[in-house]
Amino acid sequence: MFTYNQLQQFSYQVFKKMGCNEDNAQLAADVLVSADIRGIDSHGVARLIGYVRLWDAGRINPNPNVRLVHETPSTGVVDGDAGLGLIVAPKAMGIAMNKAEQVGTGWISVKNSNHFGIAGYHAMMGLKQDMIGMAMTNASPLVAPTYSKERLLGTNPIAVAIPTGVEPPFVADFATTTAANGKLEILQRQNEQTPNGWVQKADGGASTDAHEVKNGGALLPLGGDREHGSHKGYCLGSIVDIFSAVFSGANYGPWAPPFVSFLPLSENPVGEGLGHFVGAMRIDGFRPAQDFKDHMDNWIQRFRNADPIDPNQKVQIPGDQERLMEKERQKNGIPLNENVVNDLQELAKRFSLTF
Amino acid sequence: MFTYNQLQQFSYQVFKKMGCNEDNAQLAADVLVSADIRGIDSHGVARLIGYVRLWDAGRINPNPNVRLVHETPSTGVVDGDAGLGLIVAPKAMGIAMNKAEQVGTGWISVKNSNHFGIAGYHAMMGLKQDMIGMAMTNASPLVAPTYSKERLLGTNPIAVAIPTGVEPPFVADFATTTAANGKLEILQRQNEQTPNGWVQKADGGASTDAHEVKNGGALLPLGGDREHGSHKGYCLGSIVDIFSAVFSGANYGPWAPPFVSFLPLSENPVGEGLGHFVGAMRIDGFRPAQDFKDHMDNWIQRFRNADPIDPNQKVQIPGDQERLMEKERQKNGIPLNENVVNDLQELAKRFSLTF
Repeated sequence: MFTYNQLQQFSYQVFKKMGCNEDNAQLAADVLVSADIRGIDSHGVARLIGYVRLWDAGRINPNPNVRLVHETPSTGVVDGDAGLGLIVAPKAMGIAMNKAEQVGTGWISVKNSNHFGIAGYHAMMGLKQDMIGMAMTNASPLVAPTYSKERLLGTNPIAVAIPTGVEPPFVADFATTTAANGKLEILQRQNEQTPNGWVQKADGGASTDAHEVKNGGALLPLGGDREHGSHKGYCLGSIVDIFSAVFSGANYGPWAPPFVSFLPLSENPVGEGLGHFVGAMRIDGFRPAQDFKDHMDNWIQRFRNADPIDPNQKVQIPGDQERLMEKERQKNGIPLNENVVNDLQELAKRFSLTF
Repeated sequence: MFTYNQLQQFSYQVFKKMGCNEDNAQLAADVLVSADIRGIDSHGVARLIGYVRLWDAGRINPNPNVRLVHETPSTGVVDGDAGLGLIVAPKAMGIAMNKAEQVGTGWISVKNSNHFGIAGYHAMMGLKQDMIGMAMTNASPLVAPTYSKERLLGTNPIAVAIPTGVEPPFVADFATTTAANGKLEILQRQNEQTPNGWVQKADGGASTDAHEVKNGGALLPLGGDREHGSHKGYCLGSIVDIFSAVFSGANYGPWAPPFVSFLPLSENPVGEGLGHFVGAMRIDGFRPAQDFKDHMDNWIQRFRNADPIDPNQKVQIPGDQERLMEKERQKNGIPLNENVVNDLQELAKRFSLTF
């Protein structure tokens, strides 16, 4: 078991070794380890060595000049200057929040970035200022559109965080696929099959092999197949891709740069780097803040008390699971997979750090 | 077979008989019959008698004073004054587009409205002005959140329309359930079973009975069950409910007013009427319009030409199916179900019209 501080401090030191300045290293470490503490293990320190390898490959600028290159009062495009998405996205969200402060909402599309950690972190930034936060990103192409065997979309997550009064905030954060990659990785380690509708074979045939994506197969859009609404998951993933990358001038669809450094970048890129889309809306842009919060509390209480099918499994509010995990891990620590510990020890050795 | 003009003219005359003025009657008829021509039969003239019954029940104001009651430069809340959603929603979208003209984006949450036809109509209004359009609405509670047997959400659709250059526009428009109610109605008429994951029994048990919702069962969120991501569909439906009704002060969750007039309104409403959320974003709020359109065209061409699993079933772009249907029905006419024809003849008789 590891503490949040241990993992945050170690990540901070690694980012410093990559050349990040004090502020950037702290920010990147905060965003990264917010995944571990919330139980989204696939997006936390398990990815630290991946970011280092991207830096080794010359694909990361440790101290990017993150700047607006196009704007209106409520919109803009940010050039991430090839920085870590962990740094670029919160800065873009800060710009969106400033715009929301001025005109009610702010919407920023980002180009020239890369993997930004968990979408929920950026969306939740708005909560402290009584703003609804939204964040989405495109990602390495691993998902086949309905009817195709080609991998043209990423797991393209959407996060929406909504302020509340006495209840904890509503925080939705989900991949637009049936299952996120992290869920597949768990099954791979346990050598188990997937449920149907998670993956397909390289030729597009049905499969329940958790290793299928490594064999040229694809993840499937939320819904799984046409009969169960996969065209809707494909719509959602497409909207995230377009908002993140066509709006901004980043690489979209199959041109999205892979996270793993051993895969080459596209030889004919259609844009710059990876794209994100973040937004902030002041709740008092719609109603007096207290009215809004009272009704959100009532919404949450009504849904939490919905009649359950199984009395032992109550209805959850988006964000409940991650918040309960955070509480548990703050108390008992964060478990890390053996491979992840090995990776972190390798980084420690390389950079003369202790882990 | 019926022509668009026949159905539009007849609907227009019925709305006139309900007391709508010239402009309102034309607008409501346009929105309504845009569903029939695009192949979304459940949302077109099939619902005309339902609107009349709501009017009979005193729940429709034929000439609403649709007005902003709260605003910032990019946001606002519109009071629909108990008007037809078919009239209120396009007027709210017009306000959103005016705001987008001024500050880049406009976002309007609507209260005190009712069923607004197809979401796609309102989202597509932005296209002519080079704006991305979005529209969503909450609806009669028929959907159970994951783990619950209670019906707390509507089919809560989301529509997103994105401008293009030479390609037809990208138009996503989908219910946040595995299958929309219209799909169930087709199976009911044919006396067929549903695929798994569409509905559940009143006690929450699995079912493939297309009549299950009438027996106290529920529609299921996109994903169907937890293992296949229904918690994500539940998130989406919840976000639509909150944006449409908590933002605006309409009735949310189980308090959303039913479309059918024979069901009573909640005795303890939490807001006014049904809610919608519409938005408009100028594409040149992000990039020069031509750049944006060129990349959208490229996006669409790449996806349309994706390697298909079955050579006879190419990958579709959101909006393709409805556009092809529109072309086909413009040429060959619009078929109507016998029950719908009977309903329209009943209306004709009542209002001394010919059909």
